[in-house]
Amino acid sequence: MLLTPDFCYKDLLKIPDEKLNDLAAEVRQEIINTVTTNGGHLGSSLGVVELTIAMLKTFDPFNDRIIFDVGHQSYPYKILTDRFNKFKTLRLKDGLCGFPRTSESPCDHFNTGHSSTSISAALGYAKARDLLHEKRQIIAFIGDGALINGLALEALNYVKETKTKIIIILNDNKFSISNRVGGFSTILARLSANSFYRKGKSFLRRHSHRKFFRILFKGMEFIHNHAKSLIKPDAANFFDDLDINYWGVFDGHDLKTCCEVMKLAKDYDKPVILHFNTQKGRGYEPAEKDPVKYHQVSPKGEIKSRTWSEAASEIITNELAPNDPKIICLTAAMATGVKLEKFAKKYPSRFFDVGIAESHMLTMAAGLAAGGMRPFVFIYSTFLQRAADQLMHDIALQNLPVVVMVDRAGLVGSDGDTHQGLLDISWARAIPNLEIYTPSDEKSLREIMHMASKTNAPVLIRYPRGNLQELNIDVDNKNNSGIIKIYSGEKIALLGHGTATGINLKTRELAIKKNIFIPAVFDIRRIKPFDFDALERILTEYEILCVSGENYVAGGNSELISEFMTTHDYNNTLIEFEVPVTCIQHATSQQQREIYGITPENIIDTIIKKSPIKK
Amino acid sequence: MLLTPDFCYKDLLKIPDEKLNDLAAEVRQEIINTVTTNGGHLGSSLGVVELTIAMLKTFDPFNDRIIFDVGHQSYPYKILTDRFNKFKTLRLKDGLCGFPRTSESPCDHFNTGHSSTSISAALGYAKARDLLHEKRQIIAFIGDGALINGLALEALNYVKETKTKIIIILNDNKFSISNRVGGFSTILARLSANSFYRKGKSFLRRHSHRKFFRILFKGMEFIHNHAKSLIKPDAANFFDDLDINYWGVFDGHDLKTCCEVMKLAKDYDKPVILHFNTQKGRGYEPAEKDPVKYHQVSPKGEIKSRTWSEAASEIITNELAPNDPKIICLTAAMATGVKLEKFAKKYPSRFFDVGIAESHMLTMAAGLAAGGMRPFVFIYSTFLQRAADQLMHDIALQNLPVVVMVDRAGLVGSDGDTHQGLLDISWARAIPNLEIYTPSDEKSLREIMHMASKTNAPVLIRYPRGNLQELNIDVDNKNNSGIIKIYSGEKIALLGHGTATGINLKTRELAIKKNIFIPAVFDIRRIKPFDFDALERILTEYEILCVSGENYVAGGNSELISEFMTTHDYNNTLIEFEVPVTCIQHATSQQQREIYGITPENIIDTIIKKSPIKK
Repeated sequence: MLLTPDFCYKDLLKIPDEKLNDLAAEVRQEIINTVTTNGGHLGSSLGVVELTIAMLKTFDPFNDRIIFDVGHQSYPYKILTDRFNKFKTLRLKDGLCGFPRTSESPCDHFNTGHSSTSISAALGYAKARDLLHEKRQIIAFIGDGALINGLALEALNYVKETKTKIIIILNDNKFSISNRVGGFSTILARLSANSFYRKGKSFLRRHSHRKFFRILFKGMEFIHNHAKSLIKPDAANFFDDLDINYWGVFDGHDLKTCCEVMKLAKDYDKPVILHFNTQKGRGYEPAEKDPVKYHQVSPKGEIKSRTWSEAASEIITNELAPNDPKIICLTAAMATGVKLEKFAKKYPSRFFDVGIAESHMLTMAAGLAAGGMRPFVFIYSTFLQRAADQLMHDIALQNLPVVVMVDRAGLVGSDGDTHQGLLDISWARAIPNLEIYTPSDEKSLREIMHMASKTNAPVLIRYPRGNLQELNIDVDNKNNSGIIKIYSGEKIALLGHGTATGINLKTRELAIKKNIFIPAVFDIRRIKPFDFDALERILTEYEILCVSGENYVAGGNSELISEFMTTHDYNNTLIEFEVPVTCIQHATSQQQREIYGITPENIIDTIIKKSPIKK
Repeated sequence: MLLTPDFCYKDLLKIPDEKLNDLAAEVRQEIINTVTTNGGHLGSSLGVVELTIAMLKTFDPFNDRIIFDVGHQSYPYKILTDRFNKFKTLRLKDGLCGFPRTSESPCDHFNTGHSSTSISAALGYAKARDLLHEKRQIIAFIGDGALINGLALEALNYVKETKTKIIIILNDNKFSISNRVGGFSTILARLSANSFYRKGKSFLRRHSHRKFFRILFKGMEFIHNHAKSLIKPDAANFFDDLDINYWGVFDGHDLKTCCEVMKLAKDYDKPVILHFNTQKGRGYEPAEKDPVKYHQVSPKGEIKSRTWSEAASEIITNELAPNDPKIICLTAAMATGVKLEKFAKKYPSRFFDVGIAESHMLTMAAGLAAGGMRPFVFIYSTFLQRAADQLMHDIALQNLPVVVMVDRAGLVGSDGDTHQGLLDISWARAIPNLEIYTPSDEKSLREIMHMASKTNAPVLIRYPRGNLQELNIDVDNKNNSGIIKIYSGEKIALLGHGTATGINLKTRELAIKKNIFIPAVFDIRRIKPFDFDALERILTEYEILCVSGENYVAGGNSELISEFMTTHDYNNTLIEFEVPVTCIQHATSQQQREIYGITPENIIDTIIKKSPIKK
């Protein structure tokens, strides 16, 4: 065993080259063991084990700045930079985060979670290095799927202006999260096809006047014997134009090549992109065979029932789309996550996977709607942040009938602070024309989606991650009220939306069982436009309003309701059970709810404490 | 005169080709006359007169879909599509908008204002056309500066997947708003340099098998005699890879060429980009000589004094930067707008103009801060929407000391609904770690900027468009309070920030003069973290709180203060003077304030009505 229990970065440096493949195998096994138990991102991390070892052999993770893009491929890096002994805690509460976190290790230099930030961050680090006269290498480690996002492309465009050196390591596994899309991938594919030592001589001739010559000369043996590809194929002029030297394509699983290429890049004095082909899921047969499915795996023992995503997808595929040919679906590389595979198969011409390009997706949806279609955009709440302006400027200001299906809204659990879906309500409430709906079970999801498919306004429908909530209630909402009364009660009204409505029902049950009080339960199904008529009735009938929901308190329902109360002279007591504006650390969703007090027990305790009502 | 008083689109079609240059001259004169009077975007519109005439001669603006990018170059289009008789009302209240508006004309097909949306929108329109079996041309009209924004690049990447036809007309004037930046512009420059009829024959040979052949054959005479450039130069393989046919480069002021090229593109059956060189400011000597200065001009007679932008820029250039070499400035093509020219000249190595690439700018600022620098990002409030995720995910979650200088916050006047700065507070309040400051005069701006340059947290400083507000007060804020008392009063407290504090001071003056009441005036200088201690004192001392500010009410200070009141059992009356969540039509800022009641007169009237207090 090379991975001894107290394995640390210094041990890696002592491992002789011929044993590094054994190390790679052990790292893979550790990842497979932990991720199939704890859940997490499997395929991406398995694909970059050799590249990570080569980076750590070439660069100094303490002084140099290795910046992972997205960061779900950082598990081998975590294992090899002094965190092997904690790796079994991956994605667990108080354990290692599933993404790079500067708070976790001095080897993590930039927190990530969202895609395509690494080149911009690297350029920032590089200019800081120059201005502070420091000496360090700056490396952006990015996948081919992330490279086509607008943020990465803007950064590529700006490399030329910075006149500084960064190293871009392109991990090309031909997938983003699903299959990669678009014309830019043609450039990569063509570069991959050009992987032979054809133009080495002219490359050397053109560069022999540089200080770089001697270093390259040393590398020549390597070029002839191993790489066959340290060339600039025709296709590279895309990167030439961007003033980025292109070297590639190399085998990202050939440790020797990886190390040698990186060493050359380290000694080179210009921006350079190193193009490596890798295999997603490498070393784990199920993941090699189905890299899309094994992109992310669930924790062992997680009870799976019908999920919100499945329900939403079935409603559009089986109920809405057959009856209205104008209904179409869009996703940004998340067809699997939002469960649109069946729709894509049944209606290929009405399905658009734009790749990791959320901004473009929303503006294209605006164009589709302006052109007469009924686009449903499926997107995770956290990634909708990437298209905030497009939602406002292109969809809402034009009042176009785009339905934004906001999946994984609320507390999302172990993906950590970068992936929480807590901002959407606050931001969307400040957007004109946009209507906001929050279903609390499959029945209300269905009602809302059917209604939205006929609404002549932009609609946002937010629903939680994971298993559907069954409320076992039978409330009809034919009149499309914004607030539905589920149960009457005495003095106390519990108002919530989504998951919180389920919690409020349990709160009522528990309070009655304990003979403490009998609260009314109201389900807020539409947040915008808000149902102020219903609110007035509630304010008149109940003394205490408890407002709960998995959203940030700033801009949430508590504030909205409070503003109505103060401007309309209501003096009821309001107690809020929302999430404070803070970074939410990874843990299970249930643990996160407990931390922020969105539980029946805490709701009852707080009501008793704030206003000692007894039945 | 070809532009008769009742000139409409049909008249254009009757004008013989040989008179079109005269028409262009008349259109230019009309634009110069109106824009130098009303204010507006001058250079871009003057540069595209011939291209617009050619588009309107080639395409049917009622059935085809011409989509302007940004839209500040749409004045000639407005004049020529049935709006000549209203053109004198450009950018005035109830007059023509300075950007395309579908509500204004059936010839406007997509509302714009922000950059780089046209290709995404065109792809949406094109797919809608295909799915609905309609017959129309879809044209995206985009400038070279807008092309390097991530949104446009994401769209370019997706053209290939859509397998449909759009026409991209590239108006290459070598400027974005300031000079264009980045590597992608090299591609355009190289294409421009290749503008000779070198490879026409091989181009024809390669395409002779297509149905397109006959059409091209007809075009051959044209090729030989005029264009010399309907070719695919080597450099075009960037667009080849994207499955977009590249034709260019053409003279965008040669009407005959423009018309002929567009006709060929109309009959072609694949996505095609037409590359035209144009001159920004064409036909108006001052604008030709200084296209950056004449990008936008002020209305005639506007009283210019020292602006907020000038003050902010001077503070950083003369006070902060000399004392701290870590302080650097970033802007996204807005160096002129935010007045950073002097900083750029004095500290060229510490100044970064990233082009129209707001997302990249914020993430690069995060990298710079992580690398030890003190970045100040200067951005208009409305464009910060484009970098909302980067502010949250890259800057705030990592708690990096980036100072975001949010210029043109609040009601911005005649630029219209797409340019209002009303969302920033609502969105920023829901972002962890971020501090929000709202200076109300130059003194507080200075204090806040000095403080921010030493704060170890992300800071947002928002300030209005236009002339600085002089409050003529002498309040010291050495203890960095969030809420400053300017005047004590009786029963009524006026709380505001920014421009509203000036209005509140006038309100007090007027109320005292009219002998109605004596309100206290408080200046909210820090919105986050909010100064709840000061708020409690105010709630204890005053019966009525009037909360004012140029921001959307959803997520604004009224809601924030209300939530504190309801959860802490304060029953004071709260009256709000903020902006409802609605689309704000173009007018002067003062007219907009009057519409939404943020004026001394309305504040007094409302207080009297809501709570009949007399001194």
